[in-house]
Amino acid sequence: MKKLVLIISLLSVVAIARSTEHPSLMLTKQGVVKMKKELGKFPAFDATIAQTKAMADLAVSSPIDVPVPKDGGGGFTHEKHKDNYYSMYYCGIMYQITGDKKYAQYVDMVLEKYLKLYPTLGYHPVKMSANPGRLFWQTLNDFVWLVHTSVAYDCIYDYLPAAKREVYNERLFKPMAHFLMDGSDVNKKIFNKMHNHATWACAAVGMIGYVMDDKELIQKALLGTDLTGKNGGYIQQLNELFSPDGYFTEGAYYERYAIWPFVIFAQAINNNEPERKIFLYRDAILKKAVAALSQMTYNGDFFTLNDALKKGFSAQELVFADNILYSADNSQKYLLDISKKYQSFFLPTDAGFAVARDIALGQSKSFVLKSNLFRDGSDGKEGGLAILRSPNPAENTTFLMKATSHGLSHGHFDKLTISYYDDGNPILVDYGASRFLNIVVKYNGGYTPLNDKYAMTTIAHNTVTVDQKSHYNGDIKISSLYAPTIYCYDISNPQVQVCSAFETHATDGVKMQRTNAVIEDIGGERVILDIFKLTSEKSHTYDLPFYYNGDMISLSTPYTKALNSMGVFGEANGYEFLWKEGWAKPADSMVCFTWLKGKRFYSITTVTDSNAFLYFVRTGANDPEYYLRSDPGFVIRESNVKNHTFLSAIETHGKYDLIVEKTENAVSAVKALKIVEDNDNYTIVNFEVNGEKANFRIDYNKNASAQKWSYNKY
Amino acid sequence: MKKLVLIISLLSVVAIARSTEHPSLMLTKQGVVKMKKELGKFPAFDATIAQTKAMADLAVSSPIDVPVPKDGGGGFTHEKHKDNYYSMYYCGIMYQITGDKKYAQYVDMVLEKYLKLYPTLGYHPVKMSANPGRLFWQTLNDFVWLVHTSVAYDCIYDYLPAAKREVYNERLFKPMAHFLMDGSDVNKKIFNKMHNHATWACAAVGMIGYVMDDKELIQKALLGTDLTGKNGGYIQQLNELFSPDGYFTEGAYYERYAIWPFVIFAQAINNNEPERKIFLYRDAILKKAVAALSQMTYNGDFFTLNDALKKGFSAQELVFADNILYSADNSQKYLLDISKKYQSFFLPTDAGFAVARDIALGQSKSFVLKSNLFRDGSDGKEGGLAILRSPNPAENTTFLMKATSHGLSHGHFDKLTISYYDDGNPILVDYGASRFLNIVVKYNGGYTPLNDKYAMTTIAHNTVTVDQKSHYNGDIKISSLYAPTIYCYDISNPQVQVCSAFETHATDGVKMQRTNAVIEDIGGERVILDIFKLTSEKSHTYDLPFYYNGDMISLSTPYTKALNSMGVFGEANGYEFLWKEGWAKPADSMVCFTWLKGKRFYSITTVTDSNAFLYFVRTGANDPEYYLRSDPGFVIRESNVKNHTFLSAIETHGKYDLIVEKTENAVSAVKALKIVEDNDNYTIVNFEVNGEKANFRIDYNKNASAQKWSYNKY
Repeated sequence: MKKLVLIISLLSVVAIARSTEHPSLMLTKQGVVKMKKELGKFPAFDATIAQTKAMADLAVSSPIDVPVPKDGGGGFTHEKHKDNYYSMYYCGIMYQITGDKKYAQYVDMVLEKYLKLYPTLGYHPVKMSANPGRLFWQTLNDFVWLVHTSVAYDCIYDYLPAAKREVYNERLFKPMAHFLMDGSDVNKKIFNKMHNHATWACAAVGMIGYVMDDKELIQKALLGTDLTGKNGGYIQQLNELFSPDGYFTEGAYYERYAIWPFVIFAQAINNNEPERKIFLYRDAILKKAVAALSQMTYNGDFFTLNDALKKGFSAQELVFADNILYSADNSQKYLLDISKKYQSFFLPTDAGFAVARDIALGQSKSFVLKSNLFRDGSDGKEGGLAILRSPNPAENTTFLMKATSHGLSHGHFDKLTISYYDDGNPILVDYGASRFLNIVVKYNGGYTPLNDKYAMTTIAHNTVTVDQKSHYNGDIKISSLYAPTIYCYDISNPQVQVCSAFETHATDGVKMQRTNAVIEDIGGERVILDIFKLTSEKSHTYDLPFYYNGDMISLSTPYTKALNSMGVFGEANGYEFLWKEGWAKPADSMVCFTWLKGKRFYSITTVTDSNAFLYFVRTGANDPEYYLRSDPGFVIRESNVKNHTFLSAIETHGKYDLIVEKTENAVSAVKALKIVEDNDNYTIVNFEVNGEKANFRIDYNKNASAQKWSYNKY
Repeated sequence: MKKLVLIISLLSVVAIARSTEHPSLMLTKQGVVKMKKELGKFPAFDATIAQTKAMADLAVSSPIDVPVPKDGGGGFTHEKHKDNYYSMYYCGIMYQITGDKKYAQYVDMVLEKYLKLYPTLGYHPVKMSANPGRLFWQTLNDFVWLVHTSVAYDCIYDYLPAAKREVYNERLFKPMAHFLMDGSDVNKKIFNKMHNHATWACAAVGMIGYVMDDKELIQKALLGTDLTGKNGGYIQQLNELFSPDGYFTEGAYYERYAIWPFVIFAQAINNNEPERKIFLYRDAILKKAVAALSQMTYNGDFFTLNDALKKGFSAQELVFADNILYSADNSQKYLLDISKKYQSFFLPTDAGFAVARDIALGQSKSFVLKSNLFRDGSDGKEGGLAILRSPNPAENTTFLMKATSHGLSHGHFDKLTISYYDDGNPILVDYGASRFLNIVVKYNGGYTPLNDKYAMTTIAHNTVTVDQKSHYNGDIKISSLYAPTIYCYDISNPQVQVCSAFETHATDGVKMQRTNAVIEDIGGERVILDIFKLTSEKSHTYDLPFYYNGDMISLSTPYTKALNSMGVFGEANGYEFLWKEGWAKPADSMVCFTWLKGKRFYSITTVTDSNAFLYFVRTGANDPEYYLRSDPGFVIRESNVKNHTFLSAIETHGKYDLIVEKTENAVSAVKALKIVEDNDNYTIVNFEVNGEKANFRIDYNKNASAQKWSYNKY
């Protein structure tokens, strides 16, 4: 009886199927013809094809294994199912390029195994995720499996007999797509969410939809399961997840990840429904997204804001983004430069071919890092990320202040935190995420418990913690309701670039405003003024850490170091993960801390008063599983005050040259630093560097168009 | 009256002076003619000349400052006197190359200031050295000043009127040379020492001797102040400071430094007395020295054995060594490769020109790192450094055991210590030196007190400490009397390379023998067996640390970590500088510790018994001045035993690929590891890796020619 129903339904499906052209996701019929004609002309692209062929050949010559799912990220079955989708993907593409049926056959054989396995599966046995998949421990990986497999399936679609296709469609892909789309309340919720997981979900469902010409799947992927376009789906994600400047709400590290399904699905949409002009949608938001993402880097690596590991342009998802975007808009020549400098391969597709060819034709244009304000929020009104860069690219300097919205589940409680990069190195940066990606023994490769408990807390960041509590008391729901305000971002004078932002909700009753001025040359040095103003009617303890990278060189005031035994910095909210390595009661009105990284010295000179206390801390306490790195920090504490303004000068100086064993200007040149006036309307500071004197004034109550700061040497 | 004497003595000197050709130290008349003719033909060399000219021009256009000496290393007057000798050196050379008198004039003007200053100087006011100089805090820097200034003076010698030369000779250079050579008992002692400082001293005195044609200075520089050649001098240094294999008694880091005066003086000798055939002396010992030094590197950096910082081929002294050696022996084509790969400039001299030209002519040949045993001791009988390298250069692997003599004042108490480098990274290495070279605030730029107290101690090294005391109880005098014995060094089978050495004096009554077998492929992995056999009639505590580089991933037995408070590892002999970060009482007969560095995993599987205890340690305790880095170590302790054999398998495995987010073989594949038999005559061990089984046997009492080990898969 069941069999009969199935046959009837198969027939009806066949009856209404429009004959879509194949391939049409990552490759097109036309594109393949063109690419084949040009093989042998562009060695770099030939190398990519040879590589792809090597992977495909390896797959074809290896035993096929489609195991019953068992392990979490990094474990055997997890990695095997990943291998399988890559193998199918490579073989599908090689079938198109060579016409050799062994590749198509391989994909077919693997799919047959999945066809047998998949209907037998319940939820994945590793119960670590609130949204378990079937092949993998979380649906996210199932989405990625389906995205890759769709490409492979698309490539061999015409190779398969119609009847076999229909079996795959009806018994493997449609059940899978429906499971992922709305197979449960939680899956449906995720599918319709505004979140990078949902982008993968929509790409997966939409792409397999295009292959099978299943209009329902396509429509729901584009417009959400209720088809209104207002409660989910890819189009709404394009509207909401990016700011008008292309900033992705979760920050650079997750924009890197999200951009992959965004562009791969865009490519599929463009090939199948060119009339949608998806690459031009919302004022070409995908182009802006890739541009913004490219700018949120230092030396090819993404800023480690929010949950982030070290990753950069070399990651495969960036190859997708850069290749696909370039082929969609050939005017983006900087993408060729990124490909050349950082990426070791191309996509073995129409898009990759375009990039390889145009690099060979010498069309690449320098990718230049610039100062940028990337506003956050779909309307651009939820704060933003302010980046200030030295006008001389050889200086290779990046300063940034993060004053964005919370950024969903991967966001940190880090309002107004700053980072500084110089001479090829991170100098002052946040911890990033506590995670050992894909290393099973480290919490199954997922975010460790210390990610929430430490990495997300305010004290883990270069911003002020009030009364040892995280911003918004560490409550993401409340944090997500508010965003800081960018008060000033002025790069009109490249020699003195200024940003200022304020935050009034993060700590009840305390207004925080941070102002940074990157001064390229005073007394021959780059000095970054850091004016962190706190206003409150009640007394508080304010902690301002600077997590530095390098070797501690000196502190200008006597300090005590933990010698025979060492305790922790605090009891809760992240403090318990910091060793209290040293401390000092500053004796002067100004203290200077100097460290060395690579070939340069860095100093933080900070104004201190009788309420000030200094600490040296190091991550790693209360960490029984070795989840944390051992990173050092310097903390300025101001106790028992209502209003307080931290004033520091972050200085880049000197030269440490081991080739000729020579040291120059190892000592800070900031000889004076003083708050001259400080009230609700403005702060004026004076400072002196190598004998050159200057003052800086920031006004707090100016309207949008007014000049908000001034700087004068005198 | 004084004046008259001076004039008379001047006259007599003039009378006996032979007319030496100038220049004849780093440049020759002939060489300059040749070089000038070829300018414009070799862009890389032209760039070096342009650079030299830029430095010379900068000097010429800057005010001359010859300050009264005041500061230690890195301080103002120290750096200024260094600047001055570099400036004179560049200007001297540019005078020869361009003929422009302004350069000669500059050298003359600076020398005039030194002529005024020098006679007024007593010992340098910074009293940090047992052998204070006059211009610098230690005579060493005065030697270096004189080496460079000799070159400059040589270049302008013919430019100066004879009378002026004589004034410089008599009132500046001869007094200086005599002060440095035998101006005091301690100076005379240093001059005649077998030590790198003495090499600088002899080079300085000999080179200025050649310029002035002062036979006494030349002879004493070559043969020592007693002119016998048996109690000091350059020739004896050539005989004694190098082993027959070119190993320098102080190790690679100081060979790097010593090679500079060795080659620069050799060049001067060769130009002035070619009949000495100095480059062929002692079977071409300088050629061997440079070859050995080049081999004692990883990725272009010298092994950090003994007192060492991170330094490599890019250091200027290596440019001297490589350029001069190559010009002395054009068959050493690998030196061209080193120059190309690691060095950013050439010497602006005959030698540098030869290198630049021959690179341009395509004569470079690959510099290949090989397995080598470098015997120590002038007769090659004081142990040695055993280096084992993977036969496939792409693997980029280096394992080494240090079983050398103490190595003078920069030696460490580290008998039989091992190091391991892989995939571009140090994996297991020693701490090196505790020093912030030329950073004044860090102990005046010199070796910090923790260099003796920690960096030199046995516990700071990857070898066994007995009863928490350093080898030879930390007494350099006794340590210098003995050396370990290389028992076996066998690289005949590149797939299984073996070294073994023993030491019987380092700890009273304990014989230590360490055997390492680098097995390239068992179960698809590289495994290094580490068999450390201790034999004693009394009970002891044996500690074997492995200082690892990377992130701790896992330990196969439950462990405890210091959570809220952390104490130290011990009370004395270096232990007090280690935090006790974690500990474990192993439950099994075998324990595996895994860490991650870069793209690979590393594991140490070690055999444990009921007396074993494990520790995780970290440098930095009892370090009030932040002299130490924060480096982690894993320590195996065996308590209260007489004989004990540590058996460990050091494994390189897996792949951590962040580009495609993939992890392979993150878990150790060593499934069995066992000592099957262990007695005075041999040790037999069994082990199993990825299902492949093998045994290894080391025999302890074989004669020199006998086969001492066997390895069989079964």
